[in-house]
Amino acid sequence: MLTKSTIRLITSLRQRKFRRQEGLFVAEGPRLVGELLPAFRCKLLLATQEWMADEGHKWGGCPMEVITSAELERVSSLQTPQQVVALFEIPDDENFAIDTAASSVATEGLHIALDGVQDPGNLGTIIRLADWFGIRHIWCSPITADVWNPKVVQATMGGIARVSVHYVELPAFLAALPAEVPVYGTSLDGDSLWDSSLSDNGIIVMGNEGNGVTSEVNSLCRRRLFIPNYPAGQPTTESLNVAMATGIVLAEFRRRQNTLFQ
Amino acid sequence: MLTKSTIRLITSLRQRKFRRQEGLFVAEGPRLVGELLPAFRCKLLLATQEWMADEGHKWGGCPMEVITSAELERVSSLQTPQQVVALFEIPDDENFAIDTAASSVATEGLHIALDGVQDPGNLGTIIRLADWFGIRHIWCSPITADVWNPKVVQATMGGIARVSVHYVELPAFLAALPAEVPVYGTSLDGDSLWDSSLSDNGIIVMGNEGNGVTSEVNSLCRRRLFIPNYPAGQPTTESLNVAMATGIVLAEFRRRQNTLFQ
Repeated sequence: MLTKSTIRLITSLRQRKFRRQEGLFVAEGPRLVGELLPAFRCKLLLATQEWMADEGHKWGGCPMEVITSAELERVSSLQTPQQVVALFEIPDDENFAIDTAASSVATEGLHIALDGVQDPGNLGTIIRLADWFGIRHIWCSPITADVWNPKVVQATMGGIARVSVHYVELPAFLAALPAEVPVYGTSLDGDSLWDSSLSDNGIIVMGNEGNGVTSEVNSLCRRRLFIPNYPAGQPTTESLNVAMATGIVLAEFRRRQNTLFQ
Repeated sequence: MLTKSTIRLITSLRQRKFRRQEGLFVAEGPRLVGELLPAFRCKLLLATQEWMADEGHKWGGCPMEVITSAELERVSSLQTPQQVVALFEIPDDENFAIDTAASSVATEGLHIALDGVQDPGNLGTIIRLADWFGIRHIWCSPITADVWNPKVVQATMGGIARVSVHYVELPAFLAALPAEVPVYGTSLDGDSLWDSSLSDNGIIVMGNEGNGVTSEVNSLCRRRLFIPNYPAGQPTTESLNVAMATGIVLAEFRRRQNTLFQ
């Protein structure tokens, strides 16, 4: 039997304030929960008899409770609730110093920086993309959407199990990078993505849905890229969605790396 | 003064049944409405005094009414209503014969075919993309989301002014294509997008969010492409979102064309 206080706890976690207070986030559905169980510490798992019979025995260390479909509907934030709801502990984002992160972690490989991406669906999609293209760290300005928002968690399709999302003061972070780390911005007057030289390491900065990157961050971008529309000069939509632009830019970086070493 | 019957009409258009019955669709916001006014016949435009003063005189042929912010909230389906709501006539999708469309229109340039994309946001994003990359026609199976759904219209960011979306029986359409028109599908066991030869014309087929393309349509795809994850062989999310995959594939087709002719 699901208690009122458990229901209240789970639904409260839709709000950032309570997620921070409790140190917990929610994930739903057999596929997503299955991907997150090996990666995060599970605090409580509620599932229908059906899921429990198939999967329950695999996760002995996790406190579990069988619930009815009616109970599932009361705690789920999905339009179509899916068998299982789990509460996981939000991992500590180790108390790293920005300077150290910038001068060590961020000097190797490709990274993404998000300067105020607000839509949870966009953030989740970008994390899923990062996972696909082997990006291990995303650096977000404090006003970027919260990675533990249930809409973000669902949209990552499990990507948060493999991609670390950090919240930092972006201008300080970018300014602390060694000079040889390329910082790429995107802008309508940038160089063609197809014809620009692209490095194997560096930071790709993407901005807010409506306003792009802040001027402070923009002044720290050392290279500017543009995704050419086709055919050039034709009237078209003003821009691409930020997650889409991130995907096309990342794909091109990885294409160069894939084809270079063959 | 907004009448009850106008409010009822506008809110009824959130449902496909009433859109078909009335032959009307809704668009909201100064930017989107501004893009659609030159492209579609406007049946009624409701706007705040502010919009009317700035923009109203440009659109003399359109029946207009000034409304208050409170009235705007009653007809808007946006979380944050934006100054203007317009009703446009759904254009006739000329009663073309599938065979003729397949053997004439679809033989030139690149086209997209959607086999059951269900999420309105995904369809809208794909139309916006198509607009960016100069795709003029999208061929959808009958169960694909309705292009005149307000969520689709908003997500196109005006792309529907330049991209025609047709609903056809996809297997019949694809089967009627001349043999020399390439039909590309995407699948996890396809050839690497980076290393495959890509043509300047053809049909790129994308499937349903959960189930991919139907087996009937799949058997009509003559080429299969795969977006390589990075690094190859690493555990990652199972797939990319359908709109994202469409964007990355389209970008690669256009990149080849852009760089070929320089």
